[in-house]
Amino acid sequence: MTTIAIINGPNLNLTGRREPQIYGHATFDDLLLQLRSEFDGTTIEYYQSNVEGELVSAIQRYGFEAQGLVVNAGAYSHTSIALRDTLLAVTAPAIEVHMSNIFAREDYRHHSYLTSACRGMVCGLGMDGYRLAIRHLLAM
Amino acid sequence: MTTIAIINGPNLNLTGRREPQIYGHATFDDLLLQLRSEFDGTTIEYYQSNVEGELVSAIQRYGFEAQGLVVNAGAYSHTSIALRDTLLAVTAPAIEVHMSNIFAREDYRHHSYLTSACRGMVCGLGMDGYRLAIRHLLAM
Amino acid sequence: MTTIAIINGPNLNLTGRREPQIYGHATFDDLLLQLRSEFDGTTIEYYQSNVEGELVSAIQRYGFEAQGLVVNAGAYSHTSIALRDTLLAVTAPAIEVHMSNIFAREDYRHHSYLTSACRGMVCGLGMDGYRLAIRHLLAM
Amino acid sequence: MTTIAIINGPNLNLTGRREPQIYGHATFDDLLLQLRSEFDGTTIEYYQSNVEGELVSAIQRYGFEAQGLVVNAGAYSHTSIALRDTLLAVTAPAIEVHMSNIFAREDYRHHSYLTSACRGMVCGLGMDGYRLAIRHLLAM
Amino acid sequence: MTTIAIINGPNLNLTGRREPQIYGHATFDDLLLQLRSEFDGTTIEYYQSNVEGELVSAIQRYGFEAQGLVVNAGAYSHTSIALRDTLLAVTAPAIEVHMSNIFAREDYRHHSYLTSACRGMVCGLGMDGYRLAIRHLLAM
Amino acid sequence: MTTIAIINGPNLNLTGRREPQIYGHATFDDLLLQLRSEFDGTTIEYYQSNVEGELVSAIQRYGFEAQGLVVNAGAYSHTSIALRDTLLAVTAPAIEVHMSNIFAREDYRHHSYLTSACRGMVCGLGMDGYRLAIRHLLAM
Amino acid sequence: MTTIAIINGPNLNLTGRREPQIYGHATFDDLLLQLRSEFDGTTIEYYQSNVEGELVSAIQRYGFEAQGLVVNAGAYSHTSIALRDTLLAVTAPAIEVHMSNIFAREDYRHHSYLTSACRGMVCGLGMDGYRLAIRHLLAM
Amino acid sequence: MTTIAIINGPNLNLTGRREPQIYGHATFDDLLLQLRSEFDGTTIEYYQSNVEGELVSAIQRYGFEAQGLVVNAGAYSHTSIALRDTLLAVTAPAIEVHMSNIFAREDYRHHSYLTSACRGMVCGLGMDGYRLAIRHLLAM
Amino acid sequence: MTTIAIINGPNLNLTGRREPQIYGHATFDDLLLQLRSEFDGTTIEYYQSNVEGELVSAIQRYGFEAQGLVVNAGAYSHTSIALRDTLLAVTAPAIEVHMSNIFAREDYRHHSYLTSACRGMVCGLGMDGYRLAIRHLLAM
Amino acid sequence: MTTIAIINGPNLNLTGRREPQIYGHATFDDLLLQLRSEFDGTTIEYYQSNVEGELVSAIQRYGFEAQGLVVNAGAYSHTSIALRDTLLAVTAPAIEVHMSNIFAREDYRHHSYLTSACRGMVCGLGMDGYRLAIRHLLAM
Amino acid sequence: MTTIAIINGPNLNLTGRREPQIYGHATFDDLLLQLRSEFDGTTIEYYQSNVEGELVSAIQRYGFEAQGLVVNAGAYSHTSIALRDTLLAVTAPAIEVHMSNIFAREDYRHHSYLTSACRGMVCGLGMDGYRLAIRHLLAM
Amino acid sequence: MTTIAIINGPNLNLTGRREPQIYGHATFDDLLLQLRSEFDGTTIEYYQSNVEGELVSAIQRYGFEAQGLVVNAGAYSHTSIALRDTLLAVTAPAIEVHMSNIFAREDYRHHSYLTSACRGMVCGLGMDGYRLAIRHLLAM
Repeated sequence: MTTIAIINGPNLNLTGRREPQIYGHATFDDLLLQLRSEFDGTTIEYYQSNVEGELVSAIQRYGFEAQGLVVNAGAYSHTSIALRDTLLAVTAPAIEVHMSNIFAREDYRHHSYLTSACRGMVCGLGMDGYRLAIRHLLAM
Repeated sequence: MTTIAIINGPNLNLTGRREPQIYGHATFDDLLLQLRSEFDGTTIEYYQSNVEGELVSAIQRYGFEAQGLVVNAGAYSHTSIALRDTLLAVTAPAIEVHMSNIFAREDYRHHSYLTSACRGMVCGLGMDGYRLAIRHLLAM
Repeated sequence: MTTIAIINGPNLNLTGRREPQIYGHATFDDLLLQLRSEFDGTTIEYYQSNVEGELVSAIQRYGFEAQGLVVNAGAYSHTSIALRDTLLAVTAPAIEVHMSNIFAREDYRHHSYLTSACRGMVCGLGMDGYRLAIRHLLAM
Repeated sequence: MTTIAIINGPNLNLTGRREPQIYGHATFDDLLLQLRSEFDGTTIEYYQSNVEGELVSAIQRYGFEAQGLVVNAGAYSHTSIALRDTLLAVTAPAIEVHMSNIFAREDYRHHSYLTSACRGMVCGLGMDGYRLAIRHLLAM
Repeated sequence: MTTIAIINGPNLNLTGRREPQIYGHATFDDLLLQLRSEFDGTTIEYYQSNVEGELVSAIQRYGFEAQGLVVNAGAYSHTSIALRDTLLAVTAPAIEVHMSNIFAREDYRHHSYLTSACRGMVCGLGMDGYRLAIRHLLAM
Repeated sequence: MTTIAIINGPNLNLTGRREPQIYGHATFDDLLLQLRSEFDGTTIEYYQSNVEGELVSAIQRYGFEAQGLVVNAGAYSHTSIALRDTLLAVTAPAIEVHMSNIFAREDYRHHSYLTSACRGMVCGLGMDGYRLAIRHLLAM
Repeated sequence: MTTIAIINGPNLNLTGRREPQIYGHATFDDLLLQLRSEFDGTTIEYYQSNVEGELVSAIQRYGFEAQGLVVNAGAYSHTSIALRDTLLAVTAPAIEVHMSNIFAREDYRHHSYLTSACRGMVCGLGMDGYRLAIRHLLAM
Repeated sequence: MTTIAIINGPNLNLTGRREPQIYGHATFDDLLLQLRSEFDGTTIEYYQSNVEGELVSAIQRYGFEAQGLVVNAGAYSHTSIALRDTLLAVTAPAIEVHMSNIFAREDYRHHSYLTSACRGMVCGLGMDGYRLAIRHLLAM
Repeated sequence: MTTIAIINGPNLNLTGRREPQIYGHATFDDLLLQLRSEFDGTTIEYYQSNVEGELVSAIQRYGFEAQGLVVNAGAYSHTSIALRDTLLAVTAPAIEVHMSNIFAREDYRHHSYLTSACRGMVCGLGMDGYRLAIRHLLAM
Repeated sequence: MTTIAIINGPNLNLTGRREPQIYGHATFDDLLLQLRSEFDGTTIEYYQSNVEGELVSAIQRYGFEAQGLVVNAGAYSHTSIALRDTLLAVTAPAIEVHMSNIFAREDYRHHSYLTSACRGMVCGLGMDGYRLAIRHLLAM
Repeated sequence: MTTIAIINGPNLNLTGRREPQIYGHATFDDLLLQLRSEFDGTTIEYYQSNVEGELVSAIQRYGFEAQGLVVNAGAYSHTSIALRDTLLAVTAPAIEVHMSNIFAREDYRHHSYLTSACRGMVCGLGMDGYRLAIRHLLAM
Repeated sequence: MTTIAIINGPNLNLTGRREPQIYGHATFDDLLLQLRSEFDGTTIEYYQSNVEGELVSAIQRYGFEAQGLVVNAGAYSHTSIALRDTLLAVTAPAIEVHMSNIFAREDYRHHSYLTSACRGMVCGLGMDGYRLAIRHLLAM
């Protein structure tokens, strides 16, 4: 059975509560329910942490076993070479997702250390980005 | 009836013939056939030009009438403020698409003037990026 | 008889329709009528194109024959060395005009390749900038 | 009853032991005793961690409940977009404090991602900075 | 009765005497006579100082009372945040004028702190720039 | 008797009148009355000028005699090496104060030449910043 | 029979008329006559356009059929990633030529996006550069 | 008895499994066995974590008690001011080790915040770097 | 009779009192006495001000009448385009003098706007720099 | 009789032996034989040194006597202002040659201090570059 | 028999005499005696020069014959592309050594052109660095 | 007896012959005769070389024995860290001299690695700079 792991970074546990004009009012749990029902032949693992190193460990754990990773490392995208190294070390293909359009925000959000270690990126499409990323991974 | 316009920039007429290790062997016509069959309740307009100013004119033409734009301005993404201005001037929402992962290539491809004038961006997912962009525009 | 040529660049054909909070609601045709009536002993030529290279050709055409050029190259001002080269190649004095205050907008609009190839620049004074530029050229 | 939370970042658990020529010989526990006695109608919560993500979680925890935050994120001030995001996400006003004058030290300490997400900053006034920050929060 | 104040900065008292290949041989008094006769229903106030802070004070003085300011801060344009702050603090609209084409000169003259605090800028048109600026202010 | 001198730079004479959304409606005279009553065993000298060099002279005058300086050099903070040199030359300890949070404003306000020549800085806390600075100087 | 295509960019149609102190008085037609007589067993195709996208199309057209390209993209050399992409996409080897010594001119002429997509570059040798480039292509 | 602590950062737990063309096939446990047998009169402590803040805590713990530290902070070397601060705070001399030649890799690996807080650095010599670092610490 | 004017900028009135480890204990009056006695056939004018604009005025006054200027603008050397403009506007040759070796101090002292508007510069030779500068001006 | 001097810099004595995938297998002696036979009415002097200063001396020696210089300073092209000064000091016209396409290699090879002191540059055409340079010098 | 060549650059002939607080009091001859006795089955060649080009020649000489190079190019490390080219051209593996911790010194010592052309680098370990480098080369 | 050594760098052997509009027509031998006669109680040693490393050796030789050095390293001033290291290593005080005003020339001449390793600098005063430097060294 195909496994896709979604890895979410810092503050994404606040989705639905934090800056709703940017991130909307839905919580990530709502999305997860939808995705699992929509892709019902696929196991969708989910992991969130505010701690960079725990995200490193999670990618190490899922990255050799899952068939695909959907990674939204939040603010760590812009600062973490460690996460980039982990993505390069594991074998599963990854797609980077950002709910907001990071290029329409502050300059320091315009660069992600992770993108070039991933297959591609989807940004600005809200929670739909996760759906499209999974769809692509399954179509590969 | 919903209209989505795909606007392709310079050298994308060579798709399938140019650097296949990056862009694959399929031509854009192949893709267009698939998309039109897949989204058969939707009119999918297609325009390609190597001339920046003709792309400006095309976005002016479709951007007030279509319900969504899928824009891959190729190399002009990285240099054209004119195209950015046009995207800001028109009313249809746009999604930027790049077949290759522009962040895994040369530095000068890491910045696009268009992204922050679009709703979001999909890159690195090959021709599938166009499909996902249309899907998102239709879901809006 | 004195000839002044006004050369307008990309998206200026949308004036009156595009971002009216920046550019106002009047169209350029309205302005042209006023200017031709106001300066009635002067031939005022007008050319607009969205294509950089056609603007190059237009400046080549008018720049050896007119007594003055009023150039608003829009977004190409910030990226076009080709237009700068043409302005340096022709013999008519030119004045650069921008309707908006380009220095109060995005950073990439703060530099124009054309200014130092022109006699001077007027910016931020809306359509009145064209009038003042013509007035100066005629007073020379 | 008013609650103020003090959040201290990495190496501040060494205060009184580390580089005393910069940070002095008093420990943070000494200060806490003084502050709690000085502001005796106020609950002063205290949290210290060396782990960036745990500081994110602490600000998430206190930032919706306390009436004010006093944040000294130590070295993470200069590198953590994650902490900045959390400060923007929560509702309590925050004041950034640094015991040393960070502008009289190495270049990489001159920029803090947190300052513009806080109400203001106090630096260079030693442990007294915490006192003044609390005083201001209570006076608001 | 309408009042327009012209504020001139350092070394502009040498106009007519200093680098005539750039600034011409006419003095500013000559110009002032012409302007006052040309715009005879308008009070044209004139103030020149070599001292940045006195220019700050002058703009504070005229900027709440005059209907428009014409400001040529000379070299302080490129270095004075104080003058910028004053222009933002007062209520009269201002137009920045430079007699020479500052973009055709040294790099450090290409940026003015004042432009984005003004309505617009006229440069390179010699003393005529003052006339055009007044004309625009009166036409507003 | 202890003397503390407050030195205010350009445009701070407009406090209460200028950009009230940033600086509030109270004037500096109001604050001065409060401070003198609050710290009644202390002489609080006050000097304001719009002229950089007069601020240099004032710091030279007070800086060898007062027991502490509270310096808000306004816009000159970001451009004046002369003021920095004076602060280094005199013997009284100084604290830099900014009413607004300079790090939440334009980039060119993020650097102050004065901070590293002072004991510390307080910013973003409005007029209360002066009070806290005096309190710290008296506690030293 | 061997075919070499010469592709000339913007303003090169003015050669002999524009800035003769840099480019000389001979026209490009004169040169073409000489070259065709000098290399009489070789077909020398010639294309000039002021429009970037038409140059893209021309290189697409000749670049799969000719045995060599001599490319002088004029000002577009310094700004056009589109032309670079086309040179990388086609199969014919190309040599970049500039009549003037671009490194002895303005800074923005010191970088060409095309050079590293070509076999090599000849600059500063006037029209003779075209001759030497053809000679090298034929000798390969 | 002499104690040397080896502190390893993120992803070094994958050594032998990750990018073997850069890091080789041996695991760190293999090395540790060798080192402990080779330096048998010395206690060699070993700590690895993927979490930056846990590495801070580990250096705080060993850095006041061991006679020397061998630190390979992996990717955190390039981003962690916190680790640098801890190395400056503790008393044991440290040597930075990188198995790969970080200067022959991406630009962002060319700077380490840790080096100048250490006695020196050994890089590019594979696992042998640890051995040489210990040898030097023992010879001091 | 030959006149040489010495123009001193901000804080140089503190010479002998300020940072003696850099500037020594002698006052400028002591030096002036020596110089006037040493060059007794020459009128040595002296002007010092802390106000940039007054220095501008002084150079305007002496710069058309004296046979040479010795200019030490102190901190304004590094920030004042106005003073540079004045030096370019006047006719007397000037030599820039700095008592300290500005290149052995902070980075922002390594650039002077004045040097290239002067004949040359002497720095690091203490008060002797003034003597050598006068000697050179008289020898011209 | 016409004399052309070829000046070769560091490591060019290894040509044919060093990185043959970049520089080919032929030695420079082979080339020299060919050139001397091909241009038999011309004296072709040859000098190679690994020492920058000896190249300076060689250009001083030949640069006043030869009718042309062909200079390949190898790595010194990118770092030597001394060689640039010498080329500006001598009277013979020089052409810079690089066998490889320096713009297709590392960034630090993209700038040559020599180019703007030469008539022009030929790069990327292998040893043929020397031949073409001589041909141009003889045709002048 | 194995040969290792040590190549020392400028000013290393002063070791023991120059800045002893950085480099210690021992001379390089002392070290050489120790190394030759310690590695007595190995020929240790030694070459020192102050001339960059002579170091190029020495590496050319030893680099094809020795089994390993230990290179301390001193100040040339930071400026010499020529030496880098030579290291890339020869066949022996090299290790870069610096006695001082170059990353704890001036900024311009933080980059070495040689490191990425070597197998690795040892710095900050004084003369012991040479010993460790030889030990590693012999262990390979 | 006092010894002063003058050390001249590359191309200074051409003085009087090279770019006379910058350097004048007198040769350095002429100057040397004058200086030796003018300072007749002083031994004035003179050394010139085009080779950086020989200048290093010369400063090593004179720098421990002479009472002062006058160093004009020509173009090496801007590129040579080796010469800077030597000046720091020797005991004699040095003064840097440049005949031309290096700050009125190309950007890359505005920085000298030597200045901060010297007592001071004299530039722009032609050959007189050497005289003034010697005078200062003798007066110390």
